Amino acid sequence: MGRLRFLTAGESHGPEMVAILEGFPAGVPLLAADVDVDLARRQRGYGRGGRMKIEHDQVHFSSGVRGGETLGSPIAMVIQNRDHERWTAHMSAAPFEIAPNPMTRPRPGHADLAGAIKYDRRDMRDVLERASARETAARVAAGAVCKKLLSLLGIDVFAHVLAIGAAHVPRTELPLAEIRTRSRASDLACFDAEAEEQMREQIRLAAHAGDSVGGLFEVIATGVPPGLGSHVSWDRKLDGRIAQALMSIQAIKGVELGPAFEVSRRNGSAAHDPIHYNDDTRSFTRPTNWAGGLEGGITNGMPLVARAAMKPISTLKKALPSVDVTTKRPFDAAFERSDVCAVAAASVVGEAMLALVLADALVEKVGGDSLRELRRNLDGYLTQVREF
Amino acid sequence: MGRLRFLTAGESHGPEMVAILEGFPAGVPLLAADVDVDLARRQRGYGRGGRMKIEHDQVHFSSGVRGGETLGSPIAMVIQNRDHERWTAHMSAAPFEIAPNPMTRPRPGHADLAGAIKYDRRDMRDVLERASARETAARVAAGAVCKKLLSLLGIDVFAHVLAIGAAHVPRTELPLAEIRTRSRASDLACFDAEAEEQMREQIRLAAHAGDSVGGLFEVIATGVPPGLGSHVSWDRKLDGRIAQALMSIQAIKGVELGPAFEVSRRNGSAAHDPIHYNDDTRSFTRPTNWAGGLEGGITNGMPLVARAAMKPISTLKKALPSVDVTTKRPFDAAFERSDVCAVAAASVVGEAMLALVLADALVEKVGGDSLRELRRNLDGYLTQVREF
Amino acid sequence: MGRLRFLTAGESHGPEMVAILEGFPAGVPLLAADVDVDLARRQRGYGRGGRMKIEHDQVHFSSGVRGGETLGSPIAMVIQNRDHERWTAHMSAAPFEIAPNPMTRPRPGHADLAGAIKYDRRDMRDVLERASARETAARVAAGAVCKKLLSLLGIDVFAHVLAIGAAHVPRTELPLAEIRTRSRASDLACFDAEAEEQMREQIRLAAHAGDSVGGLFEVIATGVPPGLGSHVSWDRKLDGRIAQALMSIQAIKGVELGPAFEVSRRNGSAAHDPIHYNDDTRSFTRPTNWAGGLEGGITNGMPLVARAAMKPISTLKKALPSVDVTTKRPFDAAFERSDVCAVAAASVVGEAMLALVLADALVEKVGGDSLRELRRNLDGYLTQVREF
Amino acid sequence: MGRLRFLTAGESHGPEMVAILEGFPAGVPLLAADVDVDLARRQRGYGRGGRMKIEHDQVHFSSGVRGGETLGSPIAMVIQNRDHERWTAHMSAAPFEIAPNPMTRPRPGHADLAGAIKYDRRDMRDVLERASARETAARVAAGAVCKKLLSLLGIDVFAHVLAIGAAHVPRTELPLAEIRTRSRASDLACFDAEAEEQMREQIRLAAHAGDSVGGLFEVIATGVPPGLGSHVSWDRKLDGRIAQALMSIQAIKGVELGPAFEVSRRNGSAAHDPIHYNDDTRSFTRPTNWAGGLEGGITNGMPLVARAAMKPISTLKKALPSVDVTTKRPFDAAFERSDVCAVAAASVVGEAMLALVLADALVEKVGGDSLRELRRNLDGYLTQVREF
Repeated sequence: MGRLRFLTAGESHGPEMVAILEGFPAGVPLLAADVDVDLARRQRGYGRGGRMKIEHDQVHFSSGVRGGETLGSPIAMVIQNRDHERWTAHMSAAPFEIAPNPMTRPRPGHADLAGAIKYDRRDMRDVLERASARETAARVAAGAVCKKLLSLLGIDVFAHVLAIGAAHVPRTELPLAEIRTRSRASDLACFDAEAEEQMREQIRLAAHAGDSVGGLFEVIATGVPPGLGSHVSWDRKLDGRIAQALMSIQAIKGVELGPAFEVSRRNGSAAHDPIHYNDDTRSFTRPTNWAGGLEGGITNGMPLVARAAMKPISTLKKALPSVDVTTKRPFDAAFERSDVCAVAAASVVGEAMLALVLADALVEKVGGDSLRELRRNLDGYLTQVREF
Repeated sequence: MGRLRFLTAGESHGPEMVAILEGFPAGVPLLAADVDVDLARRQRGYGRGGRMKIEHDQVHFSSGVRGGETLGSPIAMVIQNRDHERWTAHMSAAPFEIAPNPMTRPRPGHADLAGAIKYDRRDMRDVLERASARETAARVAAGAVCKKLLSLLGIDVFAHVLAIGAAHVPRTELPLAEIRTRSRASDLACFDAEAEEQMREQIRLAAHAGDSVGGLFEVIATGVPPGLGSHVSWDRKLDGRIAQALMSIQAIKGVELGPAFEVSRRNGSAAHDPIHYNDDTRSFTRPTNWAGGLEGGITNGMPLVARAAMKPISTLKKALPSVDVTTKRPFDAAFERSDVCAVAAASVVGEAMLALVLADALVEKVGGDSLRELRRNLDGYLTQVREF
Repeated sequence: MGRLRFLTAGESHGPEMVAILEGFPAGVPLLAADVDVDLARRQRGYGRGGRMKIEHDQVHFSSGVRGGETLGSPIAMVIQNRDHERWTAHMSAAPFEIAPNPMTRPRPGHADLAGAIKYDRRDMRDVLERASARETAARVAAGAVCKKLLSLLGIDVFAHVLAIGAAHVPRTELPLAEIRTRSRASDLACFDAEAEEQMREQIRLAAHAGDSVGGLFEVIATGVPPGLGSHVSWDRKLDGRIAQALMSIQAIKGVELGPAFEVSRRNGSAAHDPIHYNDDTRSFTRPTNWAGGLEGGITNGMPLVARAAMKPISTLKKALPSVDVTTKRPFDAAFERSDVCAVAAASVVGEAMLALVLADALVEKVGGDSLRELRRNLDGYLTQVREF
Repeated sequence: MGRLRFLTAGESHGPEMVAILEGFPAGVPLLAADVDVDLARRQRGYGRGGRMKIEHDQVHFSSGVRGGETLGSPIAMVIQNRDHERWTAHMSAAPFEIAPNPMTRPRPGHADLAGAIKYDRRDMRDVLERASARETAARVAAGAVCKKLLSLLGIDVFAHVLAIGAAHVPRTELPLAEIRTRSRASDLACFDAEAEEQMREQIRLAAHAGDSVGGLFEVIATGVPPGLGSHVSWDRKLDGRIAQALMSIQAIKGVELGPAFEVSRRNGSAAHDPIHYNDDTRSFTRPTNWAGGLEGGITNGMPLVARAAMKPISTLKKALPSVDVTTKRPFDAAFERSDVCAVAAASVVGEAMLALVLADALVEKVGGDSLRELRRNLDGYLTQVREF
């Protein structure tokens, strides 16, 4: 669906992560710094493990960008895996001179076992290297490119953390801009100082117990024109496309648009957003946003609000019960290095995925092969909207 | 993604709903009755309005099926709209002799306004006719065809209602087969008699108030082999594909795999499913199923459990505040006929969508153009799984 | 690729042919007559057999069109198979009361045998019913809808026959408009009266010999803006997309853009089109069109010219040697009713397929969900082109 | 369509060409050498220019391959552009310190002008860098990976040159294996020594005239099982998919399956392949192969034969008339370095594209995520075919 295509490649301890973003318009100013800022944000967050200290991700555009502008050709982005140096023997593409010991002990909650069965691999490293959240670095890179395009067209995408374990931000009347600013300043991406402290405590408690902890984040897009997505076919509905994009992030298991699970408990009269008309701006407005900015699978001009539920990290310092796939017997779990909580990092990936979906839906809606054409078409449409 | 393609067409009061299911294997025994049983289930449910009394949906296979067997060619399914008879003047494909009055009053929560702006329509009937949940009849038909294939391969898909408004089923230790049987016997698709009575009360209360009410349902697939979906690319992950499919259903705004929102509040040690090995069945098992049957975007052999949150029906007997798009002024809402609650019906659509995703993922995994080939390939794979 | 989707369904002697065209913009005026004119042209042509006398194809829009305008929703088109009446027992979707005799004698040149092996069918009717060129009625319907859109934007698509058997039109300096008019008046779609007579003679000769005869046709699109398709990725190249679309027509085995096979024998200095600039029209022009209107997989503003080679019809009055799939023995061929030549009819299908590709590429390029938006975006682009 | 995805990225003088091949099965033995041999073949051929002396292409697998085996994850292939060193200032992704002179003089036959108009680029280098045939190195790499898989399943793909300019190979009764061996030994990929000498003369003549010359090549696949592709939908037909793949190669403007243009001039009785049955091999055979191995868009078990017509190289030593896009005035053409003929090289790309299509169609038909599963499923199918 849509006009953008997006593939990633790369194993966690292989030489590099690669993303190709295809179908992106020409003429968009783009610097490596536009991407690197998000790559750095992805690596931050209280509760992260040692790997994050090794990698300092930086993107290299190996195609599709010239003289600081996109060309319309496929944009290849390469992010080196610094940790690869220590893994060259284990991760060689060429046949092994000495075969490394296979990884035969699947970790509950990971793709290890299901992936090994599917792809008929005896060494589960062949699976976990790709299933690793390291892959999200490539997503963040591609998403940052989309965010750049969107920002030039007045659309902003940002994420913040709602909850970590039992700690949850309070209901708030803060304007979105304020939530954005405050959460951007927090290493847990939390707009509320008190909640942030509780979140930190949740992480500390889990860390001391050799455990991990999950949470919730919210991705918000402002400045989205009405009319992205469509009601006409099931797979054009933007809510479904957003749900797929967010759910595809490692460890995400739940998605809602607006506070949907809460809304499901309400009556209709308290669950829908009345329609008003603002004569000054010549636009239809809503005093509330229970719908999260989408009606009938189409953006309605309100801020787009999507939420994701993240399970606790599956790699625990004290491993969960499992069996060795060779012996079929339980094994004594070793203690491992691990992140304790990655909800803040995942929220940056969420931004990226929403930006990819929105850029795709926008290009699909207004067409255009260059920023100039895209902007002209969008302006024409926005005038049409005002004159509706 | 995948090998099946699935399009629907049809306006709510047009002559018929059409579905084309393309890429479906040959040699699958298929009767209209296999579909009609689900079409009837979609129309049931306490709290439904008058339209359901008019339609008695029956499928007509106009292609792809011959002598009670699929041919491998596209399966076209046609479901007549009985109500169309009263709408022939309004829904004529030919130019109107007398133009019908345009619908200019958008209903909050519906696609009316966003769709009209997007497609530049002054008469919002041009939008609402397609956005209507009547479209789900076509989905249920295509889904029933997929359920037939799945059932021949030992996979069962069923849905049941978890909550309506504030009424929620209790935690249960009932076996899935029992939940299936009990909910199938309930006109609210609820396995628990006491909860069902509370749900009925929620609907009654809303009806008396001229209001509507939402809820939650759960779709479960049993007998799913490990290895459907994949961790290798974001859009092959089965969780994302399921999320899109369910979220694309009219009025669905939230999706979770297993109890994901609850899991996000837990610690990792209590949120993942330990791995055991059963020597008798030669299979890896889990004592719990917090993951909802998916790890790393791949089925792990446990029952697949997906949940959806449905907002209350947007058409209220007493309409919500809105403005006329021509005058831009608020209008006096008229009382309308409407369903009060359609969670049970939506759960049948949820079954259909999950069946479509699973059939697609299965055909993609094991290949095969005929039932015989599909079964042979699947059997070979299941042997491989046992020998892993 | 692209934004339009297009599926057909239907067996040759089933109740009806169905096409769904999805992603088509709203607000396009559309009458059944716009389609029926091409359906009638598809049925014409000297050398056609008896089936064409039975069918008088007419389209029924069962969705997506209201009051003579498209809605943006999927357009379902239904064309009844009149011949079905005589085949209801053989083509029943329900299980047979008395199983019809299976068709066990594959006809060389048809899908019969390869399709039966692939889909594991013992009765080759299960294959031939779908492989039949009857399916092209659905393509012509969808193509006619696209031609309507294109014509409103100044793009005209027409086809004419270049050769039948050994009879070939002469080189010509006639303007395209004249070729269009003359070929439209010929029942062999041939612009040259003398060549037409020779073609007719080829058909007569083949008919007397109980044989069939093939030929060549050309599809031309005028008014195509520069910039459709793209050089950036292999599957965005418009030449490849056109080649697939034409090659997918029953009995088409060769495709060239411009006189490509002749050009392959030339030197570069005589094979490329010099670039001039016309100050009056402010456009780049070419004095020649060896490229057939495409450079680098992108339209260059010249007329688009694609040619297709059609093999002789595979059903011969005197059947070719073959073996019965049950006995594995040669059988005595029976004489069958058959068309002798269908090149003129195929050229109408070629028009349809080129129109589908162009409409898709156009909507992809300029975006837009309504005719008004599409036109505004296209006008903006054409101004940009003039100012280049 | 299908299960494999394939994207390339990279500008001709950028740092590197990248290909990602996604959806490829696990467990396929794969060495860089398997790819490098075809990369070297692509660079050979009498009549090539100076660039080929600079590049000595070698693939680097940066993901998807470990210890000499594929993992099932996306395979990223990187091929360095050695020439990039001299172009770092012109091809910098970062903003230019000193802007290089723009390329404002479009070359007839290239994407230069159409691409610049489409993407709104004033410097046509932004287009030509991507439209360049350098991109085909990435295709050859991906195709070589597919050829490896196919060869393990008994399918061989090879190409040879039929004609260069006016020089054409004679009709031959040589077995395909002999044509393969002989053409592989020729630097013009020509199986006939006399024709090869004539081809060489055509190239010499063109070179002396500062001109270029085109030609024809043929790609053949042997060992292809019956049943790849399908008759059921226009875009599943394998002939159309092959046509798109070959036509998408730079400078290819015509495609035929078998000798289709010749067949179009024949009568049906001399144009179709009779069906025999071989009791020993238990297979249906044909004494001829006019159909090029495809009936109804499905492989029929005969060798697959596709031909492509290549226009003469568009870059001529003495440039064709054109206008400067800034001044809109004709310019004095400069002499440029250029290849004179690249038909042999293009034939290697043709091999790659056919291999990509066949691997995709094969994986789609028999499914399977590992070589073991693929082979088991294929063996089961081949048994079914023999028992048909």
